[in-house]
Amino acid sequence: MAPALRLLLAFLAIGSCIAVDHVDIWPMPQSANHGTQRLYVSKDLVLSTAGSNYADDRAILKDAFQRTMDLLKLNHAADGAEPSSYVLKGVNVVVRSPEDELNFGVDESYNMSILTVGEPLHAQIEAQTVYGALNALQTFSQLCYFDFTSRLIELNSAPWMITDAPRFPYRGLLIDTARHYLPLSTIKGVIDAMSYSKLNVLHWHIVDEQSFPIEIPSYPKLWNGSYSYSERYTMSDAIDIVRYAEKRGVNVLAEIDVPGHALSWGVGYPLLWPSDSCKEPLDVSNNFTFTVIDGILSDFSKVFKFKLVHLGGDEVNTSCWTATPHIKEWLRDNHMNVSDAYRYFVLRTQKIAISHGYDVVNWEETFNHFGEKLDRKTVVHNWLGGDVAPKVVAAGLRCIVSNQDNWYLDHLDATWEGFYMNEPLEGIDDPEQQRLVIGGEVCMWGEQIDASDIEQTIWPRAAAAAGQY
Amino acid sequence: MAPALRLLLAFLAIGSCIAVDHVDIWPMPQSANHGTQRLYVSKDLVLSTAGSNYADDRAILKDAFQRTMDLLKLNHAADGAEPSSYVLKGVNVVVRSPEDELNFGVDESYNMSILTVGEPLHAQIEAQTVYGALNALQTFSQLCYFDFTSRLIELNSAPWMITDAPRFPYRGLLIDTARHYLPLSTIKGVIDAMSYSKLNVLHWHIVDEQSFPIEIPSYPKLWNGSYSYSERYTMSDAIDIVRYAEKRGVNVLAEIDVPGHALSWGVGYPLLWPSDSCKEPLDVSNNFTFTVIDGILSDFSKVFKFKLVHLGGDEVNTSCWTATPHIKEWLRDNHMNVSDAYRYFVLRTQKIAISHGYDVVNWEETFNHFGEKLDRKTVVHNWLGGDVAPKVVAAGLRCIVSNQDNWYLDHLDATWEGFYMNEPLEGIDDPEQQRLVIGGEVCMWGEQIDASDIEQTIWPRAAAAAGQY
Repeated sequence: MAPALRLLLAFLAIGSCIAVDHVDIWPMPQSANHGTQRLYVSKDLVLSTAGSNYADDRAILKDAFQRTMDLLKLNHAADGAEPSSYVLKGVNVVVRSPEDELNFGVDESYNMSILTVGEPLHAQIEAQTVYGALNALQTFSQLCYFDFTSRLIELNSAPWMITDAPRFPYRGLLIDTARHYLPLSTIKGVIDAMSYSKLNVLHWHIVDEQSFPIEIPSYPKLWNGSYSYSERYTMSDAIDIVRYAEKRGVNVLAEIDVPGHALSWGVGYPLLWPSDSCKEPLDVSNNFTFTVIDGILSDFSKVFKFKLVHLGGDEVNTSCWTATPHIKEWLRDNHMNVSDAYRYFVLRTQKIAISHGYDVVNWEETFNHFGEKLDRKTVVHNWLGGDVAPKVVAAGLRCIVSNQDNWYLDHLDATWEGFYMNEPLEGIDDPEQQRLVIGGEVCMWGEQIDASDIEQTIWPRAAAAAGQY
Repeated sequence: MAPALRLLLAFLAIGSCIAVDHVDIWPMPQSANHGTQRLYVSKDLVLSTAGSNYADDRAILKDAFQRTMDLLKLNHAADGAEPSSYVLKGVNVVVRSPEDELNFGVDESYNMSILTVGEPLHAQIEAQTVYGALNALQTFSQLCYFDFTSRLIELNSAPWMITDAPRFPYRGLLIDTARHYLPLSTIKGVIDAMSYSKLNVLHWHIVDEQSFPIEIPSYPKLWNGSYSYSERYTMSDAIDIVRYAEKRGVNVLAEIDVPGHALSWGVGYPLLWPSDSCKEPLDVSNNFTFTVIDGILSDFSKVFKFKLVHLGGDEVNTSCWTATPHIKEWLRDNHMNVSDAYRYFVLRTQKIAISHGYDVVNWEETFNHFGEKLDRKTVVHNWLGGDVAPKVVAAGLRCIVSNQDNWYLDHLDATWEGFYMNEPLEGIDDPEQQRLVIGGEVCMWGEQIDASDIEQTIWPRAAAAAGQY
């Protein structure tokens, strides 16, 4: 008999299983049934892995369990005397897969049962991958609370039987380190909080018009475009972020936003500017532009192992191209107007990214202008409004939903109710097409926030969107 | 030869000692001389205690050193290759006193030398107590920075010879958990940041009119006056805060603000109110009021070991006393007017606190109304304006300066320049009287802030005031 089935039968046998009535878990699991028994969580709660196929060489599970314990004890000293019965002594985690590569589409499902009989009492977590187990630990932590009478961590309404899996494989949050530099410790704080809501993609909008804070070993002058000497990330810092995120089940999607939103690139390499007086978009006529992009994406591919890379492509004002003689000449020689040149730039850049093993994300303007030309590996990133996702998936491309009216966190007048009610599948009825919506993303653009208020601006609204989990 | 003298001679011998020109240490040490040699801080920097008399049984020093290392590595991965010379290998800390009781007046001075010769290169810290050594480590951390070329932590301008001691023994910051509840983790974050600026007293304005969040074992219904079930501190939580602060050289000054600012007390014990319709100040006529205060201060004395306790005494509106028949009668029977009763209340409460081993702090209204009657152990806490401190010390009492125009952090229009320029000894010329000003305190009243913005509101202005260190 499969362990899960055995547990289910044991659960049903004790007869105290009632339908979900009041469950304070966020996001709500696919299924959660519980009883009425209060349990006490042992101060010395033990992690065990009996029956697991996962060796945990990188301590992903062990560290996640320790973080769970730290979180439970964060705000009160749980020093009450442990009673003699109904004490939860451990968490046993069974992970079926020995692999722990985190990437797009990894299985994040889990089952968790917490019975009121057995010796010792323990929570039983079963998951295909360690990342499903991490989600289970988040759910477990939400069942626990400090009780002021017993002075212990308690867990109400056992037994529990929870079955859960995300609705979408992509559940993103954008941060923007170009408009305001964010220290590593701040980014890590954001990642920690993402894991509480089971968000799984940090979309790192690293560079933009205003600053180029990251080191690119292939082109070491690019970060001359940083705001200051100290407002920079080394590639080792980027690796640190990626590893930190991975250990929490969070992928990192890196973005360079080309050909617009790239003025800062030319501080180190002025040849990337159309001219000294007209600096954006990147010079489409100069092969050097694409050589630099190839260098960046080559360097990225060593660090950002997520299957997707974001190439931007939004808000391209091409007036500098027609205002600059040598580009105007190049357009004429190549029989292109500025629309052709914009398409040429995006498609050439897509090819470079794909040559480095990436699938490509582009903002929706690329689809709106020349959707049929986009590489079939493209994921179109909606932002302007609510009507593009149906068109994207009807065209057979994948889509990420971030319609700004509901899911832009820099819109301070966007309410949590709006975040919560936003439906990524709005207007898409065909199940095949629905599957092409890989998920959604809330966007914390950086013009108006910095390290002092980014977390307060992200939460709790991002958590409301995570209700779509 | 004394170690310090030997070091001084070694320092002078190498001939590279120049006068202070540009030193980025905050607050500025009493004396700091340095040279021009860049050092590299080893990734494996070692703490040693050769010559120390301090056993560090509570790991105060060891943990502080680890925090220093964590801080240095917080925002960049320092993974450059270590050069073969000029590598700082360790910090040797000599603490003369084996004792580590933290309290008012503990010696916080230190000397630190960082030479460019010797094997291995190390920072030498000498201090009377471990708390001086902690201050030295803060200074040390400020000398270090991440260098983007070497990818190492570096320390410029060695050799260094720093001599330092605080100007005032009391360097406070007030937090207010009655107007908004602050989670333990937030309070700990404030304490961490205090230590960076060498502030040494957390004045915990625990309870007030709006809420009574703390557990009082002697009167277990008092925290019925909390905002909610979860917005409470157990006594174990308070002990946790005190221990956490002590390990960072920060004392905790607990306050109950009586007889005004105490409406919330009556939620659990309505007898403390003059009547159900007139609830503040505490009922002066009822012996039970003083029994409760005795219980609170008895419980406090087991947890808050700082020599001082704060009894408030400000903003007492006595109209409820004259509006309540049984109190009006009591006043008449005892031949008191309301001013007499206010004095009676404060003095009786002082006696209770002193009976529990405390010296007493009271807000300045008590001095302004009946200064000559205050116990000689009283420390008068200025807040209204700039002119009371000279009167207090002229009367032979001690004083803490917190004039609201410059040092109230809830005054959002009070600038850091104003914080920086505020002079606690303004108008006091006699050195004997100057010594009675035990220090200053900046006050973060809680009406307008909560956990989401308290740190951003405290800093950097509180650090500007810490320039008075």
